[in-house]
Amino acid sequence: LTSRLPNVGTTIFTVMSALATQHQAVNLGQGFPDFDCDPSLVNAVTAAMRDGLNQYPPMTGVPLLRQRVAEKIAALHAHRYDPEREITITAGATQAILTAVLAFVHPGDDVIVLDPCYDSYVPAIELAGARAVRVPLHPLTLRPDMAAIAAALTPRTRALLINTPHNPSGTVWTMAERQALADLLRPTDVLLISDEVYEHMVFDGQPHVSASGHAELAARSLVISSFGKTFHVTGWKVGYVAAPAALMAEFRKVHQFNVFTVNTPMQQGLARFLAEPAHYLGLADFYQAKRDAFRAGLAATRFELLPCEGTYFQCVGYDAISDLPDDAFCRWLTTEVGVAAIPLSAFYAQRPQRRIVRFCFAKQDATLNRALERLAQL
Amino acid sequence: LTSRLPNVGTTIFTVMSALATQHQAVNLGQGFPDFDCDPSLVNAVTAAMRDGLNQYPPMTGVPLLRQRVAEKIAALHAHRYDPEREITITAGATQAILTAVLAFVHPGDDVIVLDPCYDSYVPAIELAGARAVRVPLHPLTLRPDMAAIAAALTPRTRALLINTPHNPSGTVWTMAERQALADLLRPTDVLLISDEVYEHMVFDGQPHVSASGHAELAARSLVISSFGKTFHVTGWKVGYVAAPAALMAEFRKVHQFNVFTVNTPMQQGLARFLAEPAHYLGLADFYQAKRDAFRAGLAATRFELLPCEGTYFQCVGYDAISDLPDDAFCRWLTTEVGVAAIPLSAFYAQRPQRRIVRFCFAKQDATLNRALERLAQL
Ligand SMILES: CSCCC(=O)C(=O)O
Ligand SMILES: CSCCC(=O)C(=O)O
Repeated sequence: LTSRLPNVGTTIFTVMSALATQHQAVNLGQGFPDFDCDPSLVNAVTAAMRDGLNQYPPMTGVPLLRQRVAEKIAALHAHRYDPEREITITAGATQAILTAVLAFVHPGDDVIVLDPCYDSYVPAIELAGARAVRVPLHPLTLRPDMAAIAAALTPRTRALLINTPHNPSGTVWTMAERQALADLLRPTDVLLISDEVYEHMVFDGQPHVSASGHAELAARSLVISSFGKTFHVTGWKVGYVAAPAALMAEFRKVHQFNVFTVNTPMQQGLARFLAEPAHYLGLADFYQAKRDAFRAGLAATRFELLPCEGTYFQCVGYDAISDLPDDAFCRWLTTEVGVAAIPLSAFYAQRPQRRIVRFCFAKQDATLNRALERLAQL
Repeated sequence: LTSRLPNVGTTIFTVMSALATQHQAVNLGQGFPDFDCDPSLVNAVTAAMRDGLNQYPPMTGVPLLRQRVAEKIAALHAHRYDPEREITITAGATQAILTAVLAFVHPGDDVIVLDPCYDSYVPAIELAGARAVRVPLHPLTLRPDMAAIAAALTPRTRALLINTPHNPSGTVWTMAERQALADLLRPTDVLLISDEVYEHMVFDGQPHVSASGHAELAARSLVISSFGKTFHVTGWKVGYVAAPAALMAEFRKVHQFNVFTVNTPMQQGLARFLAEPAHYLGLADFYQAKRDAFRAGLAATRFELLPCEGTYFQCVGYDAISDLPDDAFCRWLTTEVGVAAIPLSAFYAQRPQRRIVRFCFAKQDATLNRALERLAQL
């Protein structure tokens, strides 16, 4: 038995959630809401099941849901995808990422990821038999470093995997950064895989800068998002991919032999729910209020606040509190203080110089207040 | 753009279902029921959603569902899997198969499949960078040919992928065949991936011969099944894998970076439903009655009946009706006769000598009768 992923353990999210449960800690680790979705979304799924919509949907997804996604992208980013050939519903964004990598990346290729990044990216690349080339974000700002990306591009580079709004840092790409990326990729045939699962959580009136909103980038991009994040149903495992038809045809070849297709009742319910733009347009304000309250609470502790432009994650330094490395600090925080967090080193190839942990603020106000009370004691 | 799967088109199931819809044919092609699941299963899922069980479940699956699966296997096959370490819930069986292959098969390995086989097996092996070695079933009986399997085993063989009850042939492995396989694999370290999605559809009082029911085989096997097939909810996309802890640890490494986890409300509902063994123990009789009625109807046509020991598929020859190759015959049958079927060549590497098509009889009696009326005119 020789492992295909010898360096991989159980994901940090599973480890920290289990530890939080065991110690009855307030779980601000793994990213999921501790409140319910809109009851009308549950009702729409129930209606679909009661209508007998329980068998295989089309391999590419329920047509109405694909159409709603195309309409949403057209409205928000002025880019038209053909719902029939250019949108595919996936079993969450993680499945979309692995499928995209397997569909396009050949053994021996290089794929650039920006370090730190979500913990599935590098194993996905390794499963394709390729090499992940990690380009550090600016160590201080945690923003993309265009010169470093440019320096990493070689003829072996098959794809670049980016993420905005960015987990774990909470940074959001600017229009200027997107334009710089387009300029940089112009002379290459590098594919862009753009993980935009937090697309509806960008704060302070800033826009979400999507790869689909830049015609030249869109032509070489697979844009990936998640209904679980947007509609407070992380456990439903439904996401989508948008890409030009030629790319989507290859994506679907692999998708059909991975999951084949995605849960019918959830797709039907989401299609009905997505018809009402208010259901996602209000999300930024909703989470911005939580961010602001949580940051105000943290400002009264000895944690050091990092910027949070988007996502439902708040990163903090803790130099004034502890000398522990970030993973040990998170374990200690969970077991001794009763608040679970995620160590940023879990997103890096090598332990970063700055010691930072990530809190998830997709929680009820009471939950956040309970955590803040405990954190204030430090 | 260089395809990772240059020889792959859209799966035959998608193609034939689309053609059936377009021509309003009775769809006996793609394998799914045209009747509803038990309403109490829908109610259990609804209750889970209303209870707020809409966030990530554990990566390995909802504990109660894993426990129920372990209990079922213990009761039916007298093999004890530890639900915590040896059962994982998957987004259907297809996802389980790709995940198993990616977890264990290295570039340059060989994986043996029995020809004909389900159309996802070979692309899964190719995505792992390995080579699929196709060992034909006996061309007349469509049963496994142990001598041919023995001859195909080499030091490069990493795994063997089998399927019983067998899609498309409807054959079912015997105890003697399972013992022969165990004898044959004993001197090797070949992994067995056993696709048993039709496990509860074995007819005429015969047992389902599971790899999990043979201690020696179970020690080297990943046993895969599907709730969609068993509970008439193919669109829910929930299945499971059972394997010894050491194998399961590797499976989960890949699973967590593929789909991460599986729809929470469906898992919760299935856990409650699975508590009642009658919900799956009655399935063989239910489908046997359909098989018998459908075969009786076909006996009055010019189709030639092949045996059907299990699954919800009936294979037939049509030499007395047409000279067309099987794919052209299926298109003709769909568009001109109004009954969709699946050509057996879709499951083969090379067009087989015998021309055979597959009907799915997981349909309401009225649907089957409508199809039989049309088929009787030929
Ligand atoms: C798939 S579990 C992790 C959820 C998440 O995206 C995160 O916490 O970063
Ligand atoms: C995943 S669609 C195909 C369903 C099926 O298993 C079959 O028809 O053989």
